Amino acid sequence: MQEESHFLIIGLGLLGGSYAQGLKRKGYHVSALDINPESIAYALEQGWIDEGAVGFDEKLVAQADSIVFGLYPQALLEWIDQHQDSFAPNTRITDVTGVKEQIVTQVQQKLHPDVEFIASHPMAGREVSGVQYADCSMFEPANFIITPTAANTEAGIAWVRSLAEALNFRNIAVLSPAEHDKMIGFLSQLTHVIAVTLMNTSDNTHLVDYTGDSFRDLTRIAKINESLWTELFLMNKQNLVREIDEFAAELAHFRSVLENEETDEMKRLFRQSTQRRKCFDK
Amino acid sequence: MQEESHFLIIGLGLLGGSYAQGLKRKGYHVSALDINPESIAYALEQGWIDEGAVGFDEKLVAQADSIVFGLYPQALLEWIDQHQDSFAPNTRITDVTGVKEQIVTQVQQKLHPDVEFIASHPMAGREVSGVQYADCSMFEPANFIITPTAANTEAGIAWVRSLAEALNFRNIAVLSPAEHDKMIGFLSQLTHVIAVTLMNTSDNTHLVDYTGDSFRDLTRIAKINESLWTELFLMNKQNLVREIDEFAAELAHFRSVLENEETDEMKRLFRQSTQRRKCFDK
Repeated sequence: MQEESHFLIIGLGLLGGSYAQGLKRKGYHVSALDINPESIAYALEQGWIDEGAVGFDEKLVAQADSIVFGLYPQALLEWIDQHQDSFAPNTRITDVTGVKEQIVTQVQQKLHPDVEFIASHPMAGREVSGVQYADCSMFEPANFIITPTAANTEAGIAWVRSLAEALNFRNIAVLSPAEHDKMIGFLSQLTHVIAVTLMNTSDNTHLVDYTGDSFRDLTRIAKINESLWTELFLMNKQNLVREIDEFAAELAHFRSVLENEETDEMKRLFRQSTQRRKCFDK
Repeated sequence: MQEESHFLIIGLGLLGGSYAQGLKRKGYHVSALDINPESIAYALEQGWIDEGAVGFDEKLVAQADSIVFGLYPQALLEWIDQHQDSFAPNTRITDVTGVKEQIVTQVQQKLHPDVEFIASHPMAGREVSGVQYADCSMFEPANFIITPTAANTEAGIAWVRSLAEALNFRNIAVLSPAEHDKMIGFLSQLTHVIAVTLMNTSDNTHLVDYTGDSFRDLTRIAKINESLWTELFLMNKQNLVREIDEFAAELAHFRSVLENEETDEMKRLFRQSTQRRKCFDK
């Protein structure tokens, strides 16, 4: 990344706003596009962007050499269909999408050959959305995953890496899009399915007075952005259905162990889960 | 509870030790029995008990008017079978067991009519066990549930309530043993089954580098005391099997919605889980 890089953030939400804030702090020129005038006004007021426009602005797109899409997956794909002729030659582009294989394949197919899309996933977020909640300090404890393909150049991959470094991510990893989506299907998507399903199993809101931390911890992620997560789940359907099936089979095993009072097997399951979970202690 | 009450804690673990500590701070005479000499020595050293004995001690039992069982469920039942002749007349007894109906029924059937067992459940705990981790401040944010039956007296129920007050529980509630066990089957036991099952679904410990807070929050309770929880689950088998079945049915519904790409229903499920979970925000 060169010091004189001109960044453009397309979609100034929680993540896009945090990218703008972090890049501005490092002294880069940052501009932004968003359909919401209030989001642009807020980021200008905070000093997180040098320029901004509502909707589309050809000049801002053309002057950028480094672009970050902060849009939802389908909106990203549509934006490229409509506006990619405005990209300057040699522009480098990345995104923040939580599922990679479909996005990478489709974007790389669509794009003119003189611009490069190097996909990445900042594994950070909050339960709220909107630029008003942006805060680039959320990247400091987080993982940043680059998912290159054969279509990417070493220079392009190095550019995304230096972006993640500028944003102070704790750890930067490289995975194939397929490896990424399998991992995210288990670690993130299945856990969200479980939390949502637990809340939906029955209306137990009358039990709120008796609820302890373990129930709250387990269901925190049941508060979920319905539009974004529906897109992400559908884009990773094959992995997620398989994860649900494997989890459901293990749950059926536990149920049978309980029903038949197989105490030795129940204790073995508890020991195994305890041992594995200890590996995840920080 | 009278100022001159003599408390006996039978089973000086994490909870029993915390009871001893909290009661001693309020000035009560506290003694304890435990099979582990180190636990007794530790509590004496900390000044949490006035007297203690390893194993059984007839004098300590006979001099107590107020007894708290900090034992595992089966050990509690066996203790009463073996030693209840040593109870002084009019002794009041409670426990800390996380499942109530079977314990209450069996203990009240066993006990001589001149002593009263008023069951209760301190909804507090940690992922560790042993008197070395005892800390009565864990009761301050916690619920205390009294589960009386027709066999209990008003005076006995008031005694347990004043015990919970002395230990500074945040909230004291009264439920029937059946209501308690249904509630605990959902809020605590099902959540533990889910966390354990998620860890056991496949060995994903190689993913530790990519793991964020939501996975850690959801699986924290997968570290579980195998002996205690096996007893608790079997004692609440009927409720827990039903909860697992209801959760599994809801999970199968989500899977089908995803498989068939029913986006409207998926969004409805997300909105519902979000709305319900908000009720549990502190």
